Amino acid sequence: MTTTLITNIASLVTNDPAQGDGTPLGLLTDAAVVLDGEKIAWVGPADKAPAADETYDAEGRAAIPGFVDSHSHLVFAGDRTQEFNARMSGRPYSAGGIRTTVAATRAATDEELEANVTHYLAEALRQGTTTFETKSGYGLTTRDEARALRIAARHTDEVTFLGAHIVPPDHADDPAAYVELVTGEMLDACAPHARWIDVFCEKGAFDGDQARAILTAGKAKGLHPRIHANQLSYGPGVQLAVELDAASADHCTHLTDADVDALAQGDTVATLLPGAEFSTRAEWPDARRLLDAGATVALSTDCNPGSSFTSSMPFCIALAVRDMGMTPDEAIWSATAGGARALRRTDIGVIREGARADLALLDAPSHVHLAYRPGVPLVGEVWQRGSRRVTAER
Amino acid sequence: MTTTLITNIASLVTNDPAQGDGTPLGLLTDAAVVLDGEKIAWVGPADKAPAADETYDAEGRAAIPGFVDSHSHLVFAGDRTQEFNARMSGRPYSAGGIRTTVAATRAATDEELEANVTHYLAEALRQGTTTFETKSGYGLTTRDEARALRIAARHTDEVTFLGAHIVPPDHADDPAAYVELVTGEMLDACAPHARWIDVFCEKGAFDGDQARAILTAGKAKGLHPRIHANQLSYGPGVQLAVELDAASADHCTHLTDADVDALAQGDTVATLLPGAEFSTRAEWPDARRLLDAGATVALSTDCNPGSSFTSSMPFCIALAVRDMGMTPDEAIWSATAGGARALRRTDIGVIREGARADLALLDAPSHVHLAYRPGVPLVGEVWQRGSRRVTAER
Repeated sequence: MTTTLITNIASLVTNDPAQGDGTPLGLLTDAAVVLDGEKIAWVGPADKAPAADETYDAEGRAAIPGFVDSHSHLVFAGDRTQEFNARMSGRPYSAGGIRTTVAATRAATDEELEANVTHYLAEALRQGTTTFETKSGYGLTTRDEARALRIAARHTDEVTFLGAHIVPPDHADDPAAYVELVTGEMLDACAPHARWIDVFCEKGAFDGDQARAILTAGKAKGLHPRIHANQLSYGPGVQLAVELDAASADHCTHLTDADVDALAQGDTVATLLPGAEFSTRAEWPDARRLLDAGATVALSTDCNPGSSFTSSMPFCIALAVRDMGMTPDEAIWSATAGGARALRRTDIGVIREGARADLALLDAPSHVHLAYRPGVPLVGEVWQRGSRRVTAER
Repeated sequence: MTTTLITNIASLVTNDPAQGDGTPLGLLTDAAVVLDGEKIAWVGPADKAPAADETYDAEGRAAIPGFVDSHSHLVFAGDRTQEFNARMSGRPYSAGGIRTTVAATRAATDEELEANVTHYLAEALRQGTTTFETKSGYGLTTRDEARALRIAARHTDEVTFLGAHIVPPDHADDPAAYVELVTGEMLDACAPHARWIDVFCEKGAFDGDQARAILTAGKAKGLHPRIHANQLSYGPGVQLAVELDAASADHCTHLTDADVDALAQGDTVATLLPGAEFSTRAEWPDARRLLDAGATVALSTDCNPGSSFTSSMPFCIALAVRDMGMTPDEAIWSATAGGARALRRTDIGVIREGARADLALLDAPSHVHLAYRPGVPLVGEVWQRGSRRVTAER
């Protein structure tokens, strides 16, 4: 196996509190990293670095762990440009919402869906995302949900069954029958292809009892729960997530004090998705309140063609700092280590001996620039599983 | 001279109302463009395109005129990461503001300043900006201001003398003497290297009378005025800009009805700089109010290391649509044709026979995606004066 020394890193976010300045970011200056195959073999001061087969000069740039995007919806077809344009232009538009994407996704070929996933993943990788979770949820039939999961599983281990995204039009008259389908035949067909099960717990989608039934059925089939919770209104989602030991409660825009307490006490991560609030002009989730209460916060893109069509983790960091009360350090931790917690992973989101060799070099001297220079594509080189996958045009 | 046919453009923003759909964007579908040297030779439907020496297949992507960034401050040294980090983290920090950058800029070598300008220009070009204005204003001595302008002029024709950025610490006791310097010896030394003269007209910087004296002196030396006006508070800047026929009043965050009327009646463009409001958590300028009154609006980055360290015109477009009441079409017009108006240019910001061959291809089927997909680096290929300067990694 070839070893690679990346040296002359002005500032390195390790997310290992045993390193550097003793903060959660474990910040090292004048640092180096040695990669050995798909793993990190050594991390420390550049002047103490061991020899390696190859050397890469970071030229005084900053490095961070690759982003862990723990919430995306990439198996879809079509886009919703006209709906977005009308909404932002104040023009009436009979928006089909998720249903529009469901119809397009059902009509698409496997090859079209696969090409879409590949396209958006490459786009995310160029922006520093080395791990992503993605979901079904635009099929909503046994065949189409299982197909989406099979396609997703070719690209990531973090695959989530979201048959309970909405009640599809073909079941509008009998939601109970749809819940029965999701927890029965559809779950049987989907469980082998997924690690996670998710529910959109919201007025107009699935209520607390339905969500509990679906997640409990999923757990019985070996899937681990996560929940779309408290996005558009107050509701039972967050507390249900903690009760069921879900890895993550996602959105968390409308929280009572009891919701915040539950997150602070439990092991469920609060995953905030500022791209959704940005693109729908909605109220921001209050990250500061969650952090001050002691909850663990992750940041993710929610990349989907309806409510948040961004694949940019740096953009989410900039929003979290500007509008959600996070410091730059907290936002970068949440977009890397926080995402790893939301996926219950210890091998990613961290630059430490034995961890996966996933890291991004920034065209900037510090990680703070991800918030300080909003919108600027600062991610230069990206290593994923030890391979250099992106090379900056400099 | 070699001619190049760019064909198979799914959607082309020409900004020529004689084209296509009759809106200000002059939108053509299934379009082609022929470049001849540095100029555009032909624009129209792909199936009517004339032959050319070379053909480039846009593969169904969208194209727009290159962005015209009519307000930036790129001749500087140092950055203000710690100040930004402290402000966003709620930590006390004795911020030097512009003075910090003035000290660093004065201490820098010509080579350091030149390297910085080159770096940020390349970064902007990768994001689709093919014309940029840039200013002095971090020297604030005759020698340092003239030096900044000489360096800027190696990279752009749109150079602005901003000796009146702030009263420098060395003149704090006698602002009148500084105005005398700016309108006398400094202007004499700077005028040969600039096209424009600018003043930061604001409480704590220069008042209306000082601004009038400085701009009038500049006009007498053949410079054309533009003004930093009404950014932090109400003030005389906007109406002074219109009175002096300034090409642009920049910022326009705090406007009275009389200010809006003046902009609507005059030929002065209102240039809005949302990056500044984003990075300082300030109130947004109301683009909708200006547009509804009939004013011409431009969008620009204000790229500088203090209040707006973004070089991303797509980011400014996304903010303008989300937070300033612009439609996606209006925002894209303002970032291209609007910037050209703010520089009183007719040869850029438009894709028309005889115009400069500056255009950007997006990794998206329509220009709306610049707002619909915030933060995502969608600019693929960029042509500047007919040369392909940026090539997408696809």
